Amino acid sequence: MQGTNLLRYLHMTEYSIGVDLGGTNLRAAAIDKEGKLLDKISVETNLGAGRDAVINDIVSSISSVRSKFAGQRLAGVGIGVPGFIILETGYILGSNNLPELEGFPVRDAIEQRLGTPIILENDANAAAMGEKWMGAGRGVEDLVLMTLGTGIGGGIISHGRVLHGFRGMAGEIGHITVNPTGNPCGCGNYGCLEKHASATAVESMAMVMSLGDNLTSRDIFDLAVKGHPKALMIWISMGRALGIALATLINLFNYPLFLLSGGQLPAWDFFAPAMLEEVKQRSFTFRNADTRIEKATLGSEAGLYGAAYLPFQAQEQHKES
Amino acid sequence: MQGTNLLRYLHMTEYSIGVDLGGTNLRAAAIDKEGKLLDKISVETNLGAGRDAVINDIVSSISSVRSKFAGQRLAGVGIGVPGFIILETGYILGSNNLPELEGFPVRDAIEQRLGTPIILENDANAAAMGEKWMGAGRGVEDLVLMTLGTGIGGGIISHGRVLHGFRGMAGEIGHITVNPTGNPCGCGNYGCLEKHASATAVESMAMVMSLGDNLTSRDIFDLAVKGHPKALMIWISMGRALGIALATLINLFNYPLFLLSGGQLPAWDFFAPAMLEEVKQRSFTFRNADTRIEKATLGSEAGLYGAAYLPFQAQEQHKES
Repeated sequence: MQGTNLLRYLHMTEYSIGVDLGGTNLRAAAIDKEGKLLDKISVETNLGAGRDAVINDIVSSISSVRSKFAGQRLAGVGIGVPGFIILETGYILGSNNLPELEGFPVRDAIEQRLGTPIILENDANAAAMGEKWMGAGRGVEDLVLMTLGTGIGGGIISHGRVLHGFRGMAGEIGHITVNPTGNPCGCGNYGCLEKHASATAVESMAMVMSLGDNLTSRDIFDLAVKGHPKALMIWISMGRALGIALATLINLFNYPLFLLSGGQLPAWDFFAPAMLEEVKQRSFTFRNADTRIEKATLGSEAGLYGAAYLPFQAQEQHKES
Repeated sequence: MQGTNLLRYLHMTEYSIGVDLGGTNLRAAAIDKEGKLLDKISVETNLGAGRDAVINDIVSSISSVRSKFAGQRLAGVGIGVPGFIILETGYILGSNNLPELEGFPVRDAIEQRLGTPIILENDANAAAMGEKWMGAGRGVEDLVLMTLGTGIGGGIISHGRVLHGFRGMAGEIGHITVNPTGNPCGCGNYGCLEKHASATAVESMAMVMSLGDNLTSRDIFDLAVKGHPKALMIWISMGRALGIALATLINLFNYPLFLLSGGQLPAWDFFAPAMLEEVKQRSFTFRNADTRIEKATLGSEAGLYGAAYLPFQAQEQHKES
């Protein structure tokens, strides 16, 4: 490398692009190696327009962000998507939110269009990575994140990296059995955590309690704020289910940190006491190790940060080997 | 190093000593780097004689094995014990089988007496490591072992190493909640796997089924062989509990291999069909990834092999860093 080029090289900002593909929004952000957000765009996800349109939107969002940093070095692109990512092939499997992309070589299609390698990751895994990098998990090498939304997702960070398992399907925390004869789940199981603690589960409890028709999780939160006894019971039931799953996780992993995030988090004061009571009762490990159970701090940005971090991490891994 | 010494060095067999401290037996073995068993001794565990006697027995067993290989290089000593090992301090916590050793600096006491560093490990973790090294897990980097005995222990191997968690308490598979209102457990929980699938649990089911007084798990196996309907139901119930826990493990880890070992294994044909039926039903991941659920192959030797392997692994780790 010539002297002038070398100087330019050393002065270039290295950045990475993180993408979060949700059921309603597609966001892309440029983030530098120190975790500084350089740029962010958000477009509506137009799933009804079909697979090609979704791929188009992803590609043009990335290109749009990239064009603003023409002189800088792009470390890579990470994309968080709902559903199982089959690591070897880059296919998406079992994504209820994005059935359009199922059984299709998503990674290869985007790489071909962009002309640059991308890293595909499950959205909850990306969020866990983001919290580890820039959120509540800074300084911790091992943590579990639960995302409490319409469903319940999970990401496990082990020795600073996403725990993938051998096909890339690990971390399905929403499908821990909390009650073997509980509510049926689309996965084939009965009593999945997701069917007893997600927003949808909370709404279904309002129905079985005859609390009202078409109440949202937010409505049930508002009723709890007003002290409505049935609403309070619902959040306690939700907290117990979480506590049962958390106790099993703590007994299995003995990690120092378990994080909760997602749309249900504002109801923390209503569900957390029952959750912690269950954990204390059900986990000898919790009672004997200083396990922290805390709120995540990056909110819906976690997935973007995590997706952007993945190319930086891949670089480091490459240097080590 | 002089030429002659170097030659002698190169011709020395490097070996390691593995110890398995059980409730009834204390075994010690010399094993070489290729996994060849060079020597093995076994003495009765005399817990009634008190802590000093137990430590004495451990130290003299190790010394006895060591004395037979005076000219060889000892890579180190690994000891598998029941209970939680607190990694930092080398204390044992919550060991029902060895209350004598609880809250006592076991590791330091043995190291001082032997004058050589030792590695203390939970017995089920050691067994999982043994199966990975020389048993059913050869060639696999990630696996889970469940030991089905009087209780249920577990060991998780992640990237070829024992998953410890931050205090060393990870892998408590026997305390996965399989039924939140199930049998009470000494750990404080209700419905631990151990309380529904261990030999003790099987025996308690014979009691609630009025199958007979003081029947052992072996008796109930024999009755199942004869086709006794209540005995068959007990093994099905045990298998279902195992299946519920396995489904949760598969959903969390997505590992390629899950192994079962221990005294209950001969009843495989009676419990495994119900177990696999539950797993198929309850785990989307199992149905979509080629997960193997198999019998471990080293039997009660697994812990000895795993304990002996730990010093070799520590050497490798040392070389890498």
